[in-house]
Amino acid sequence: MPDRYALDLERWSRRSVLKVGLAGSGLVGGAIALRTLWQPRSQPVHVPMSDRVIAEPKGFTPLTTLRQFDYGSVTTENGRTVREFRVEAQTSTVQLNSATSFITWNLNGRVPGPTFRATEGDRIRVIFYNRAGHSHSLHFHGVHKSEMDGIKPVRNGGVFIYEFDAEPFGVHLYHCHIAPVTRHIGKGLYGMFIIDPPTPRPPADEMVLIMAGYDVNDDQKNELYAFNGMPHYYMNHPIRIQKDQLIRLYVLNMIEFAPVATFHLHANLFQVYRTGRHLQPDDETDVITMGTAERHILEFAYRYPGKFMFHPHQDDIAEAGCMGLFEVVDRTASNPSSNTTEAHAM
Amino acid sequence: MPDRYALDLERWSRRSVLKVGLAGSGLVGGAIALRTLWQPRSQPVHVPMSDRVIAEPKGFTPLTTLRQFDYGSVTTENGRTVREFRVEAQTSTVQLNSATSFITWNLNGRVPGPTFRATEGDRIRVIFYNRAGHSHSLHFHGVHKSEMDGIKPVRNGGVFIYEFDAEPFGVHLYHCHIAPVTRHIGKGLYGMFIIDPPTPRPPADEMVLIMAGYDVNDDQKNELYAFNGMPHYYMNHPIRIQKDQLIRLYVLNMIEFAPVATFHLHANLFQVYRTGRHLQPDDETDVITMGTAERHILEFAYRYPGKFMFHPHQDDIAEAGCMGLFEVVDRTASNPSSNTTEAHAM
Amino acid sequence: MPDRYALDLERWSRRSVLKVGLAGSGLVGGAIALRTLWQPRSQPVHVPMSDRVIAEPKGFTPLTTLRQFDYGSVTTENGRTVREFRVEAQTSTVQLNSATSFITWNLNGRVPGPTFRATEGDRIRVIFYNRAGHSHSLHFHGVHKSEMDGIKPVRNGGVFIYEFDAEPFGVHLYHCHIAPVTRHIGKGLYGMFIIDPPTPRPPADEMVLIMAGYDVNDDQKNELYAFNGMPHYYMNHPIRIQKDQLIRLYVLNMIEFAPVATFHLHANLFQVYRTGRHLQPDDETDVITMGTAERHILEFAYRYPGKFMFHPHQDDIAEAGCMGLFEVVDRTASNPSSNTTEAHAM
Repeated sequence: MPDRYALDLERWSRRSVLKVGLAGSGLVGGAIALRTLWQPRSQPVHVPMSDRVIAEPKGFTPLTTLRQFDYGSVTTENGRTVREFRVEAQTSTVQLNSATSFITWNLNGRVPGPTFRATEGDRIRVIFYNRAGHSHSLHFHGVHKSEMDGIKPVRNGGVFIYEFDAEPFGVHLYHCHIAPVTRHIGKGLYGMFIIDPPTPRPPADEMVLIMAGYDVNDDQKNELYAFNGMPHYYMNHPIRIQKDQLIRLYVLNMIEFAPVATFHLHANLFQVYRTGRHLQPDDETDVITMGTAERHILEFAYRYPGKFMFHPHQDDIAEAGCMGLFEVVDRTASNPSSNTTEAHAM
Repeated sequence: MPDRYALDLERWSRRSVLKVGLAGSGLVGGAIALRTLWQPRSQPVHVPMSDRVIAEPKGFTPLTTLRQFDYGSVTTENGRTVREFRVEAQTSTVQLNSATSFITWNLNGRVPGPTFRATEGDRIRVIFYNRAGHSHSLHFHGVHKSEMDGIKPVRNGGVFIYEFDAEPFGVHLYHCHIAPVTRHIGKGLYGMFIIDPPTPRPPADEMVLIMAGYDVNDDQKNELYAFNGMPHYYMNHPIRIQKDQLIRLYVLNMIEFAPVATFHLHANLFQVYRTGRHLQPDDETDVITMGTAERHILEFAYRYPGKFMFHPHQDDIAEAGCMGLFEVVDRTASNPSSNTTEAHAM
Repeated sequence: MPDRYALDLERWSRRSVLKVGLAGSGLVGGAIALRTLWQPRSQPVHVPMSDRVIAEPKGFTPLTTLRQFDYGSVTTENGRTVREFRVEAQTSTVQLNSATSFITWNLNGRVPGPTFRATEGDRIRVIFYNRAGHSHSLHFHGVHKSEMDGIKPVRNGGVFIYEFDAEPFGVHLYHCHIAPVTRHIGKGLYGMFIIDPPTPRPPADEMVLIMAGYDVNDDQKNELYAFNGMPHYYMNHPIRIQKDQLIRLYVLNMIEFAPVATFHLHANLFQVYRTGRHLQPDDETDVITMGTAERHILEFAYRYPGKFMFHPHQDDIAEAGCMGLFEVVDRTASNPSSNTTEAHAM
C-alpha cells in the first residue's frame, strides 16, 4: 500500500470527519470503498485510482482540495446535527513555481482553505483561531445574523466562533473580509462552503475547482493564476476520471483584480446549476462567465477516453497557470487492474 | 416637523407628480402614509423612518434617488395616459469627497438623473432642455422609433421632445449618447427608467441603486465609484429597512471603463428578475455579474436585525466608494415610536 | 444584373455548397428566390436587397460572413450525411483603416473564417491545410474525441483532417489553439460553427455577427475592434433588414484581452437563446454580457423603419470599431421595386 494512502488514513484518524467526497461512491473492481456515512446510495460512482503516489507541493493542496470535503466534527444538540470546524489562520511561504516564492495568509496551512460541507438545516460552528500575524476574519456567504457576518476583525492571537444555520442549499464560499479585501483574498484566505439539499443530489464523482490569482509583485495585477492554489498543477498531474461517469464540479471564481473569469471545458458541454440553488439545470454550455465570488455546479460526463483541457477562455489567464487536464480512462477496457489498486483518486 | 420633510413637501408641490416610491405602502405605527395615487394596495409596506434629518450633499441625490420616483405630469389624451417629464441638462461642480471636486454634466442638477416611472402602455413625453454647454442627448432603452433614439445631438441651448410608448415592462435606462459616450455617461448624464407591468408587482419597499464610476483625472479609468452618485454615502448613512419586509431593488450598472460590476449582498440571497422582464424570478444568488447598462430587479427580505453590507465583489471597486449598508430594524421590538416619527425614509 | 451577384453565382459554382443563408426564404416582390435545398419551408423570409454593388475590403468578408453559410460538400456514407469542408490557413496583410495595415493569420484568406453549418447528427470532416508559415490548429467547440480536439499543432505545410459528429445542436465556434492563443485568435484564426436542431428553427433572416479585437502594436491590448473582421464596416454599410421580419442573429464574442463584451441593440429588445441550446428563449433584454468564446442566438424584429445601432455597451470598444447599423426598410411602402432587384442581401 503506497505511502500516500497511509498518509490519508493517518489524516483521517486525526480528523475523523474529513472524508473523501465520493457522494454515495462504491468503487468497483476491487478498490477500497470509501462510502460517506451520511448518504449511502445504491448507484456506484467510478473514480479511477492514480497509478503512482503524488506528493502535494508544500503549502498547497490541489489533491485534497479536489476531492476531499470537510464535514466537521458531528454532534447532536437538541436533536439537531451540529458540525464543528476548527481552522487556524497562518502565514507561510510557498513555492508557486521554480522562480517564485510567495508569502500566503492561509487556513490550516493550505490554499485554498478546507471545503466545509453540510446539509441544509445543520448548525454550523466554525472556531477560528488567528495566528497569522495580522487581523483577519471569516466572512461566509449564505444566510446568518449580522454578528456572524465576519466583518469584524479578529486580531492576531484572537479567536472567534462563527455560528449559524446552513442555509440555503447551494454552493457558497468564505473569505477574509478585512480591507483591502483584494489583498486578503489574494494572499490565500478563502475556501468553498457547500450546503447539500435535504434530498441529496444523484451520485457523482464530485470535485472542487477554485480559480484564483497571485499578485506576486504587489502591482494590483495577477502575474500567476491557479486552480486549487497551485499554478499549472493539473496540467502536470491530470485529473483522472472514468468514461461515462457523471462528474459534478463545484467551481468558484476567487480571482481578484480581473473582473471575470470564464470556465471552458474541452470537447464537451456541461449542465449549469447556478449557485447550486436548483436541482434542475439552468443552462447548458461549454463556456461560462463568472464574476469574482460567483460559483456554480457544472455536470458532465465524457464519452471518449483521452486527455481534455479545462481553463478560462481568457487565454492570458489560462496560460499563466489556470489550466488543467481531465484524463478520461476506461477501466473496463485496457488495464482494469492497475487503475484500482489505490484508494486515493487523483 | 423636520426641515427635511418640509423641503420634500415643497418639492412635491412644485413637482406634483414626484412621489416617494412606496408601491402600495401604508406606513404603520403612526407614520404618515405616503400612498401612490395610481396603485393603492391592501398590503402594508413597512419603511423605517430615519431618526434624524439628513442633508443631501450638494449636487447629489442619494436620498431622493433611492426611494423617489418621477411619474411625470399625468394627463389623458384620447383616453390614454400621457406622462410628461421636463429635464434640463446642466453643468455643475460637486464635491466627491473632501479632496476631490468634479465637474458633472447632469440632469436637473442631480447625479443620477431622475428615475422616470410609468406603466406599460403609457405615452411618454420627455422635454429635454440642454443648458449644459455642450451637445447632449437622451438615449432611452426600450422600444421606440428611430427619430426618438437619442442619437442626434441636441446642441447647447436647444430643446428636443422625446416621445414614445412605454414598452415593454421592465427596468430600463437612459443616458446621453454623444461620443465619447464613456465621457458623457461618466460625467453624470444617466438615469433609470422603470416600466411597471399592467398588473403591478406585489407591494414592497422599492429602491433604486445605480452603480457608476468617476474618472476624476481623465485617464480613462475610474478613481472613485458610487451608488447613486456619492462615493461611500450609504456607508456613512445606512439604508434603514424593516425586518421581514420584502425589499425590491432596481439595480443598474452604469460604470464605464470597467467591463463589469458584480453586486453582492451580505448574509442573504436575492431573487433575480433579469431586466425586470418577468414576474417570476429567473435566478437566486448573492453575487450577480452585470455588464455596463445591464439592470435587474433583486428581491429579498432580512430575517435578522443589524447592519449588512452591499457592494460589488470586486473589492477595489467597493473600497473606492461603491459600498453601502442596509440597517435592518425591527420596529415592533425595541423602539417602535422613534422609527415612525418622520415621513422620509432613508 | 450587377457584378456582385454575378460574382456570387461564380462563387457558388466553384463551391457548390456555399449558400446564402436564408433559411426557408422565398423572396417576394420579384426578387430571385434563394431557397436552401435542405430545409424548404412555407413561410417567406423578407430580405431587403441592397441598391448598389458593394465591394468587400480586401481580406475581409463582412458581406459574406454576415449572411452566407458554408454547408460543405455533401455526400452520403452508409446512409448518413457527411459534410466535408476544405480550409487553408494563410497569412495575408489587410488594411484595417486608412492608417493601419495588419498581418492576419486566416482561413481561406478571410477574417473571420467561413461559418460552417450542419444539422445535428451529420458527420463533419474538415480538411485543414496549413500554409500560414507557423504551426496552427483548429480547435472546435462541441463534442468530439480527444484526437480531434485541435490541441496538437499542424506544422506549416502540413494537413490534418478533423472528423467528428455534429453535436449537440447550438452555436459553436472554432479557433486555433496554439499558444499564445490570444495571439493566434487575435490574428484572425477563428470562425463560427452552427449546428441546426433536427427540427429546424422557424424561418428568419439569419445573420452572423462576430466581435473581435485587433492588437495592432503587440501590447497585449486591442487598439481596434470589429464586427465580422472590418472595423466600422456596418456603420458605413448599414445592414438592411425588413420591417417586422424575424431576425436571427448568431452572435459570438471572440475578443481577446478584454474580459467580456456586451452586445446592445438600439430601440428594441431581443430574445436570447443561450449557446443556441434551446428552442425556447432563455431571456429577453437589450444588453447581454458575453465572455470570450460565449455565443448566443438573439431574435427580434423591428416595428419601425429607420437606422438603429448595435454595439457593445462598453463605449470604448464600440467607438474603436465594434459598432454597426441596421437599416429597417418597408419594402411594401415607398419604393417596393428598387429593393428587390438584387439577389444579394446586405
